[in-house]
Amino acid sequence: MAENRIKPRILTGFMELLPADQILFNRIYDTIREVYESFGFLPLDTPVIELSEVLLAKAGGETEKQIYRFTKGDNDLALRFDLTVPLARYVAQHSGELTFPFKRYQMSKVYRGERPQKGRFREFYQCDIDIIGNEELDLTYDAEIPAVIYNVFRRLDIGKFTIHINNRRVLNGFFEALGLENSISDILRNIDKLEKIGRENVIKELAELGIDDEKINKIMDFITISGTTEQKIEALKNMPIENERYKEGVRELETVAGYMADFGIDKSYFTIDLTIARGLDYYTGTVYETTLDEHKGLGSVCSGGRYDNLTEYYTSSKLPGIGISIGLTRLFSQLKEAGIIESRRSSLADVLVLPMGIDMGYALRIAERIRQAGLKADVYYAQRAMKHKMKYADKLGVPYVAVIGENEVQTDTVMLKNMATGEQSALDIESALKEIKKQMGEN
Amino acid sequence: MAENRIKPRILTGFMELLPADQILFNRIYDTIREVYESFGFLPLDTPVIELSEVLLAKAGGETEKQIYRFTKGDNDLALRFDLTVPLARYVAQHSGELTFPFKRYQMSKVYRGERPQKGRFREFYQCDIDIIGNEELDLTYDAEIPAVIYNVFRRLDIGKFTIHINNRRVLNGFFEALGLENSISDILRNIDKLEKIGRENVIKELAELGIDDEKINKIMDFITISGTTEQKIEALKNMPIENERYKEGVRELETVAGYMADFGIDKSYFTIDLTIARGLDYYTGTVYETTLDEHKGLGSVCSGGRYDNLTEYYTSSKLPGIGISIGLTRLFSQLKEAGIIESRRSSLADVLVLPMGIDMGYALRIAERIRQAGLKADVYYAQRAMKHKMKYADKLGVPYVAVIGENEVQTDTVMLKNMATGEQSALDIESALKEIKKQMGEN
Repeated sequence: MAENRIKPRILTGFMELLPADQILFNRIYDTIREVYESFGFLPLDTPVIELSEVLLAKAGGETEKQIYRFTKGDNDLALRFDLTVPLARYVAQHSGELTFPFKRYQMSKVYRGERPQKGRFREFYQCDIDIIGNEELDLTYDAEIPAVIYNVFRRLDIGKFTIHINNRRVLNGFFEALGLENSISDILRNIDKLEKIGRENVIKELAELGIDDEKINKIMDFITISGTTEQKIEALKNMPIENERYKEGVRELETVAGYMADFGIDKSYFTIDLTIARGLDYYTGTVYETTLDEHKGLGSVCSGGRYDNLTEYYTSSKLPGIGISIGLTRLFSQLKEAGIIESRRSSLADVLVLPMGIDMGYALRIAERIRQAGLKADVYYAQRAMKHKMKYADKLGVPYVAVIGENEVQTDTVMLKNMATGEQSALDIESALKEIKKQMGEN
Repeated sequence: MAENRIKPRILTGFMELLPADQILFNRIYDTIREVYESFGFLPLDTPVIELSEVLLAKAGGETEKQIYRFTKGDNDLALRFDLTVPLARYVAQHSGELTFPFKRYQMSKVYRGERPQKGRFREFYQCDIDIIGNEELDLTYDAEIPAVIYNVFRRLDIGKFTIHINNRRVLNGFFEALGLENSISDILRNIDKLEKIGRENVIKELAELGIDDEKINKIMDFITISGTTEQKIEALKNMPIENERYKEGVRELETVAGYMADFGIDKSYFTIDLTIARGLDYYTGTVYETTLDEHKGLGSVCSGGRYDNLTEYYTSSKLPGIGISIGLTRLFSQLKEAGIIESRRSSLADVLVLPMGIDMGYALRIAERIRQAGLKADVYYAQRAMKHKMKYADKLGVPYVAVIGENEVQTDTVMLKNMATGEQSALDIESALKEIKKQMGEN
């Protein structure tokens, strides 16, 4: 056998965690899921493998190059590279069976076979929500989306964050009014880089596009409007821009900002940011980015926006939508590296039962009773020295240990030890459970 | 655009669900996960794509044919076809960083590119638990595994079930004693078919293997030993078999059956079944199958056993283990088809807030309050007639609706309607929450 052994390893660009990190990852995953569900989003689980023809209906260029694509039998297949295309396909395929507005979440792995670089993954989780309307979709949803983001990141408790919102109609209308509608995508690309390359370089690049100084000044005035949300809205209203699209965008922005407060979003957690455009071509209304105040270098940790038509590549029905995505694998890896989150335990058990030289039956019944009380219980079965077993409990980071020796069996008790404080006391199992629950409630 | 539209569809053999079924599926998935975690199993999430060399270290024949395999750049890649091989690779790769015994669960999709037939899937969830020891693994784990199965299927509440246990040492030792050790795998294959093809055909096939009548009689006596667990153990002990392996197996079976009672497993839920062998070559001790009493035709819904060495293809360390797997996608599809489970709701929301011609702010604050109370709340934002909105609530199967009109805004109340009973009452939000929680607690 030995000479044929294969070196156990995985591909670069794939994240695989040790138990302590996996527990931490799952806690974040579960929190996001809980918040998504609390807003009534419905679960969706599409196949990882789809027909290339279906998956690549829209894609081109870079996406196609990155995709994992292969044949099996007569089928030309590909692994999904995001969750939006499968959603579009699903909604188009099942539109007659779905109830609109259709609110769905999907938190699954997607695949991009790109050259792996620091912080980039070939397999990663996206945690998406989208709301799809039939023909129309109420503007209130534009405020619900940031309310979900707000609740997610408050619950994750990874520090102060800011939700940046903008509206593509404001941007597009503004540039139309300047007669620059044909350069919009170039200009937006430059504006997007404002924080990265600075004001002077943006101006230089705008000039290189052939835009005259007067218009550049107007652009720079516009994108650097400052103050409170109310002041920014006021300034946008007062701009000498005669363009219906622009005005509609400003009205939308004002309405959405108002609703956001009704959703309970603290004002210090969101800002109108006129430099936010989102690269993708299909956003048409409200757009979002989210940054961590203490870690702006991480970039946007949650982005998205409103689009006019999700399913145009599959159906003639008009299905406008709005959604956001959290790239969880990347976010997790960044948060870990920045020391913002830290794994603490290599065990999920609340209590580790340690039988010491006794008949196993009593220990098993104790463990069963702990689980019946809704706690997680593990038992160390092997006959080993007390010291060895305590070391095992320490290594796993189990919060409570219930030692059971001959004495405990005879008195129908356990020796309960709080591993953090070192305190221990002989208790019957019901009292022990009460004590554990009391102490857990305090933390 | 229209002329280029692609027909939205997925591959055959892939399960994709509508929301009501997905909610049901997730409830089963979550229940299994909760039970696994309650026994201290740790989460693991390995990549879907692995290097073919690593994934196929052991595989051969049928497995290789079914695999999704492809190249990307210089890499020969494959999609995982089960969760056991990735576990072996993971444990071998990280043995220095893991704490043994290592208890892990993984509930993920695996891929088999076989020709799809009824009830077979090319992409399906496996829900696995395994416990891996370093050099040795206590026999108590052989009873813990069925305790987990017992708790899973009790909690799933899909009717009476039976956990069949056997021990490969009993089987192997018995056949060694008959001098049939070289035909063991053929004989076991036949015995495995007892229920399917019947006693007479098994006897015929055993004779075709060249086994004489006397031995065939002994074999049939052996595999049809009946009675209670205690009676079966007694009968096994009294068999005139002088073989150490056999005796060790019987002792193990007796010990494991005893512990199973200590784990709280009701005796009517398990049976010693000497016909259970499990096809795979690597099981060496206790083996399990689980059948639904009212739906035996579904076959085993949860199977597994003990093996001597998980990681021999990757490392010289000896790592014995024990584990079981639930093929959830198949099980779900079978349970649905047999009418054992039924989807009820197309919504996760506990309460749907319906604002009727009012300023949205009040409704949003009510919804926010509902979520703060730990309930799931959705809001119907579009301006539509009451009738239309109620129909929407009905279609989704939301249990409670909170209607808010001008009157409710002025009196700071909601009109709470229980959609099941039709009862409605005007309540302030705190009283409404109390009422909902009271009624939910009653169900």
